[in-house]
Amino acid sequence: MASSSAAVQAEAFPDGTKDYVPLRKRNYDIKKPHITDQPITLKNWYQHVNWLNTFFIIGIPLCGLVSTYWVRLRWETGVFAVAYYFFAGLGITAGYHRLWAHTSYKATLPLRIFLAAGGSAAVEGSARWWSSGHRAHHRYTDTEKDPYSVRKGLLYSHIGWMVMKQNPRKIGRTDITDLNEDPVVVWQHKNYLKSVVTMALVVPTVVCGYLWGDYIGGFVYAGILRIFFIQQATFCVNSLAHWLGDQPFDDRNSPRDHVITAFVTLGEGYHNFHHEFPSDFRNAIEWWQYDPTKWFIWVNKQLGLAYNLKTFPQNEIEKGRLQQIQKKLDQKRSTLDWGTPLENLPVIGWDDFVAESKDGKAWIAVAGVIHDVGKFIADHPGGKALINSAIGKDATAIFNGGVYNHSNAAHNLLSTMRVGVLRGGCEVEIWKRAQSENKDVATIVD
Amino acid sequence: MASSSAAVQAEAFPDGTKDYVPLRKRNYDIKKPHITDQPITLKNWYQHVNWLNTFFIIGIPLCGLVSTYWVRLRWETGVFAVAYYFFAGLGITAGYHRLWAHTSYKATLPLRIFLAAGGSAAVEGSARWWSSGHRAHHRYTDTEKDPYSVRKGLLYSHIGWMVMKQNPRKIGRTDITDLNEDPVVVWQHKNYLKSVVTMALVVPTVVCGYLWGDYIGGFVYAGILRIFFIQQATFCVNSLAHWLGDQPFDDRNSPRDHVITAFVTLGEGYHNFHHEFPSDFRNAIEWWQYDPTKWFIWVNKQLGLAYNLKTFPQNEIEKGRLQQIQKKLDQKRSTLDWGTPLENLPVIGWDDFVAESKDGKAWIAVAGVIHDVGKFIADHPGGKALINSAIGKDATAIFNGGVYNHSNAAHNLLSTMRVGVLRGGCEVEIWKRAQSENKDVATIVD
Ligand code: HEM
Ligand code: HEM
Ligand SMILES: [Fe+2]
Ligand SMILES: [Fe+2]
Ligand SMILES: [Fe+2]
Ligand SMILES: [Fe+2]
Repeated sequence: MASSSAAVQAEAFPDGTKDYVPLRKRNYDIKKPHITDQPITLKNWYQHVNWLNTFFIIGIPLCGLVSTYWVRLRWETGVFAVAYYFFAGLGITAGYHRLWAHTSYKATLPLRIFLAAGGSAAVEGSARWWSSGHRAHHRYTDTEKDPYSVRKGLLYSHIGWMVMKQNPRKIGRTDITDLNEDPVVVWQHKNYLKSVVTMALVVPTVVCGYLWGDYIGGFVYAGILRIFFIQQATFCVNSLAHWLGDQPFDDRNSPRDHVITAFVTLGEGYHNFHHEFPSDFRNAIEWWQYDPTKWFIWVNKQLGLAYNLKTFPQNEIEKGRLQQIQKKLDQKRSTLDWGTPLENLPVIGWDDFVAESKDGKAWIAVAGVIHDVGKFIADHPGGKALINSAIGKDATAIFNGGVYNHSNAAHNLLSTMRVGVLRGGCEVEIWKRAQSENKDVATIVD
Repeated sequence: MASSSAAVQAEAFPDGTKDYVPLRKRNYDIKKPHITDQPITLKNWYQHVNWLNTFFIIGIPLCGLVSTYWVRLRWETGVFAVAYYFFAGLGITAGYHRLWAHTSYKATLPLRIFLAAGGSAAVEGSARWWSSGHRAHHRYTDTEKDPYSVRKGLLYSHIGWMVMKQNPRKIGRTDITDLNEDPVVVWQHKNYLKSVVTMALVVPTVVCGYLWGDYIGGFVYAGILRIFFIQQATFCVNSLAHWLGDQPFDDRNSPRDHVITAFVTLGEGYHNFHHEFPSDFRNAIEWWQYDPTKWFIWVNKQLGLAYNLKTFPQNEIEKGRLQQIQKKLDQKRSTLDWGTPLENLPVIGWDDFVAESKDGKAWIAVAGVIHDVGKFIADHPGGKALINSAIGKDATAIFNGGVYNHSNAAHNLLSTMRVGVLRGGCEVEIWKRAQSENKDVATIVD
């Protein structure tokens, strides 16, 4: 196995990655000049278009849409198309994505064949090609080397990257040694067109035709149109999931969590989590979130078809969430006024404080800091009389429970009223020092 | 005015508060022994019940309920009863609570008369008595001195505190000098029974009788039953608002924010905010929250009937919210494992680190700390090969972008794998020192 695939392994780079080499085109040369090196002009635009992909992604669905005008949808075919939609979708999400791209669990041969078949039915390239690009997407998220970077626009990340040719040299290299060692992956890659035609079109046509005589309906609805829907749905993982929703774990890059994306993509919508913990077999970590791909993998585990399901420790997940909240909080904190820092305040002696207060200043000392409460007296929730009674005094104890144990809000407000720092601490310290030095308070100088 | 009320002012205590003295009972003596000094027994229980309140709060509504069996509800009377309900409700919320208890705005004479009339129609005591108790509730929230402390049970805070006699000496004293100076408050207090009978029963009876001939319906529905509903609704401020909901500003005491409470109480449901910022004329600070009392005050301002509407600075509100989130976050943080603190780790020399790694330990140095990644190699999302390639090396640069710029999650995980601190810092420092001292690396000792 390893020996047969070793022949097609590309040269390794020092960072552990290799160029992506398709297994079919033996004469493929990554070093040849590429069309994308030239700007798009009126003359060469058609060379920039990836016509094969365009045909598969846009052309065929269009034909399908038009033909529905003549083809009646039978309910049996409709039900089958929806079921086949989920089969193809799980091929991509549980197979291509969580199994092969991220090795977030291990699957037995029958399950791998099932998933590769479903993946072929979705018509989104081979598992080998898809996983290689997807690993680059994770490793180089949002950069030039990201094959579907949302920084190039939402439409580009959804479909543009397939409809237009891409320069393989610009896309991040990845290591797919493990995939080259999986015979299912290699077989599907080598027989890609055959498997697509069989799984995406022949099977639905034959099933609907054989079981209830609806060959043409099976072809149009369970085949072509169903391909279109599953493609658009799974493409949303690259577009919508990098564009819509929250970022509970990290907001430096584009991945986002949103329930709408989850509904569209069979549970791949918790994408901020997924980029942070890519080898977790779950995308949704709460039981009430929609992640049928996770449920599918779990059921397969119960059936003995899947094993070694990887999860990140809950401790690490909570830490990530906490740090992101902390980051937001720190940003918010820096936009608020927390009062003049103590080190920027003048130092004022006790006697000056008392004298100024007698002179008409509405100064109150609390915890060694002098505050000007003048503008606040009329608004004081505890009334004018009480706050006035503390002017020219050390109100540390009064403010902190002696009369009323003020709230956080009151402490915050107080800090915005700072005008000076009391020399020597609170009043009590001044008296204690005077006592021990046997001096009159008025004479204290430090 | 101040002179006439001065006669009934109680003796002031050093903390600025005074005993509550009703204006009617001239022979009232707070120092007499009180029934609540004795435990409730089978023999004296009826002395513990406040029969007057019980009659008003439970007896009358019961009679009303029974009489609905014979009295048909006419739709005109129904509509009027709902309107009168809001009138009485605003008397309590906009009048008793936000104007008189908290002086969160100023009202002209006509508005004060309107609010006192509405308050009488609600049958919840005089504005003077109500505000005095409410100020004690704020100043001594959740303590023995809180007249309706929820710590004594939800039912007690809702209705028990009125149905059972309370010892006025145990309830916190407050300062109501300002209320004694408001002629509307003093008049309503002195003529309380008269105004209650007029506003709560006579007016609805006469209006419904005079305008559409429904005297008895006006009495039963717009009078008695409406009283019952507005009482139960406003009582929820003392019970539900201290029991149901979130605590976005402070969780040391019981007040809570909940939209259900807001709906029931004409907007008094944002009670955590309210206890933190009691002199703000708003209870709901977001435009989309339900606070009709705030809207009523605002409309009166536009009409020139209310002025000096007080609000707390948004900066202070945001600070309060932020500190509460920070508090929760710190609590959460302390429950998580953040790895062994660096000061508890052994210091290991570079040569020992390299030697141990060659001896089979899966040690990787990052940022001067040695990590044992052994258990993680198989789970590494970047593959086994890459992480293996860093064993026995200083991977600081590799880990931080040289090969892949690891996420927060990866950094967190790394910190749980600490086994030692590298003597002398990162590899580069060890080499630099060796260079400058012109020595062999192996000989470095600090
Ligand atoms: C020095 C500046 C002061 C500031 C910034 C301040 C601020 C506040 C604030 C914001 C409240 C509302 C309730 C709360 O948030 O806890 C309050 C309530 C109160 N304050 Fe002050 N206060 C000051 C000084 C004083 C002093 C010196 C006294 C007493 C001598 C006092 C007595 C009270 C009382 C009794 C209440 C309770 C009123 C109630 O909730 O009904 N305050 N104060
Ligand atoms: C030393 C302990 C290491 C830990 C705890 C660790 C952890 C992780 C984690 C959690 C991820 C998932 C993506 C992310 O959260 O950023 C990751 C991805 C990756 N790591 Fe590491 N790593 C370690 C060492 C290394 C080393 C030494 C290399 C390279 C020589 C490396 C290369 C990569 C690569 C290339 C990825 C990207 C895989 C992808 O997302 O497809 N890691 N690592
Ligand atoms: Fe992504
Ligand atoms: Fe992924
Ligand atoms: Fe309250
Ligand atoms: Fe209040």
